[in-house]
Amino acid sequence: MIQAKGYAAQNVHEELKLWKFERRDVDAHDVQIEILYCGVCHTDVAQINNEWFPGLFPMIPGHEIVGRVVKVGDHVQKFKVGDLAGVGTFINSCGICEHCHSGLEVYCENGVIPTYNGVDKYQDGLPTYGGYSNTIVTKEPYALKIPAQLNLAATAPLLCAGITTYSPLKHWKVGKGHKLAVLGLGGLGHMAVKFAVALGAEVTILSTSPHKAADAKKLGAHHFVVASNPEEVEKVKNSFDFIVDTVSADHDFDFYLSFLKLDGIHICLGVPPKGLQIKNTLLTLQLGRKSIVGSAAGGIPETQEMLDFCAAHNITADIELIDIKDIHAAFDRMGKGDVKYRFVIDMATL
Amino acid sequence: MIQAKGYAAQNVHEELKLWKFERRDVDAHDVQIEILYCGVCHTDVAQINNEWFPGLFPMIPGHEIVGRVVKVGDHVQKFKVGDLAGVGTFINSCGICEHCHSGLEVYCENGVIPTYNGVDKYQDGLPTYGGYSNTIVTKEPYALKIPAQLNLAATAPLLCAGITTYSPLKHWKVGKGHKLAVLGLGGLGHMAVKFAVALGAEVTILSTSPHKAADAKKLGAHHFVVASNPEEVEKVKNSFDFIVDTVSADHDFDFYLSFLKLDGIHICLGVPPKGLQIKNTLLTLQLGRKSIVGSAAGGIPETQEMLDFCAAHNITADIELIDIKDIHAAFDRMGKGDVKYRFVIDMATL
Repeated sequence: MIQAKGYAAQNVHEELKLWKFERRDVDAHDVQIEILYCGVCHTDVAQINNEWFPGLFPMIPGHEIVGRVVKVGDHVQKFKVGDLAGVGTFINSCGICEHCHSGLEVYCENGVIPTYNGVDKYQDGLPTYGGYSNTIVTKEPYALKIPAQLNLAATAPLLCAGITTYSPLKHWKVGKGHKLAVLGLGGLGHMAVKFAVALGAEVTILSTSPHKAADAKKLGAHHFVVASNPEEVEKVKNSFDFIVDTVSADHDFDFYLSFLKLDGIHICLGVPPKGLQIKNTLLTLQLGRKSIVGSAAGGIPETQEMLDFCAAHNITADIELIDIKDIHAAFDRMGKGDVKYRFVIDMATL
Repeated sequence: MIQAKGYAAQNVHEELKLWKFERRDVDAHDVQIEILYCGVCHTDVAQINNEWFPGLFPMIPGHEIVGRVVKVGDHVQKFKVGDLAGVGTFINSCGICEHCHSGLEVYCENGVIPTYNGVDKYQDGLPTYGGYSNTIVTKEPYALKIPAQLNLAATAPLLCAGITTYSPLKHWKVGKGHKLAVLGLGGLGHMAVKFAVALGAEVTILSTSPHKAADAKKLGAHHFVVASNPEEVEKVKNSFDFIVDTVSADHDFDFYLSFLKLDGIHICLGVPPKGLQIKNTLLTLQLGRKSIVGSAAGGIPETQEMLDFCAAHNITADIELIDIKDIHAAFDRMGKGDVKYRFVIDMATL
């Protein structure tokens, strides 16, 4: 076994602290990555706190991992020692179902294995530990090639926030001629703006915070609308082809869907505690033939495509680099929406 | 003005009674239709009772109208006296917006004019009165050609229940190779079964009433699943490409969406009083990249296409023909779901 160290919560709600643990040895199909940076996702906080389901502890969060390959198995072809590599939200899947065969491993019919807070039933039946750690071992097909020309720390969030926004934009064919609104300007929201602009859409940021207007422009958004200003709202009602909704707080879906035009699509990427409620299906959905859709991260081929797209368009996340000892301060600031727009841990500080 | 008679509610919640009123004279672009049959839609009851919004009284319901042309204006080209004709859920629209130009008049940007319980702001500014009456005058483009080979009374419900189910099936491209479930076996549901079968889909009726199994088969459905039987449910979880949900009572959307496979689409056509709630967006929507969509009736070109499709496939509604004096008994039975599957009024009994 490989001796490793990471920041783990020993139990639900507990503080993360240094913990020594073991990774499996590198087998013929594995790569071992020295983790250089790991992004901090809202789902890390949710899972430490059992917000979705009872978690597996000790838990080492982190699924926006980039680093350098330090060892490869005999059958590994895609990577050699010294290459940059990344790991996203999952590290294994059954490999034999229809979805795995289609490169949609994240939707594996037999259950995708999350990068942390899971048990790798396809490999060794052991718990998975995430990227708040110094090293990770994964099967070659689940590791991504990281373009060398991008800032490495700012690339880490692409592995979750990036693919989670890129995938639905591609799936629902967002492009030139479309008007798209982004709701919620956090880790996901700011990536949605960058991707939608790069794909040719006319992008509006919908926000209840007027002070975000300057940032919206910096990110490349074409318009900024204060959603709490009735006059501004009136001007953009029934006007958008798409809304990318990244808000994980409860919000009024009837209100926001009224911004969509005929055949508009509301892409729901957040996980509001009370879920999603449409009070009036007739007005909100049926009289505009509208859709509400959801989407999870993305499969391996699409994640690689997204990374290559980012290299071609010089897209990375806007980040604040932190020391791992400051992780709880970062969590606190994330709870207040006080981050532009993703914390990334410099793993050299571990 | 043309002297007309119909069954009207003089006020909200009041019984329908014979009422004499006037229709406008036939102008150069109008057709006058002697109404022979009119279907009874759930929305008739809802509107008499102000369930959606304060109605305009006196109100003559009815928007599933078939009859015979008795007079045409000088510029009318599509109809001559003696032709069969029909009127659906709307009798006018602005005619100049993008949606009207695309044949999507039901989604008119300036407001479609409902066949009853509306004011025809594009014509004479007068209230519109529906098909529980002996005659109607409408602009030629909003009247449909009724195929002569179909049973006329059983054709009436096609003008609302028919197009409301046909339109989304076509829009979301239901066809061969698709597995489709129909939820709610009423006026809309039974038409959804017939259309989906004719379009080549493998059709399952999902029902909480085991006694409907025989009827399901008669309608042409390939399978019947009792949604309250956990064993039967387990077998069809994650298996459908589409659910056509025609239920206007409150129901558990998280439960029914679990029947959809990856990329499945839940087509919501009912209007549940409490709307639509997804408790867990992550499990219900995002981890299956699923969609919830709505759709209103359909535009004129598509309604005509649907009628021609019905002629080609010998499709009509299953109806119970009633005398107009029995309309309240029919309303009562509809409230209990006791109709197979649409009441149609024989207007000769007026």
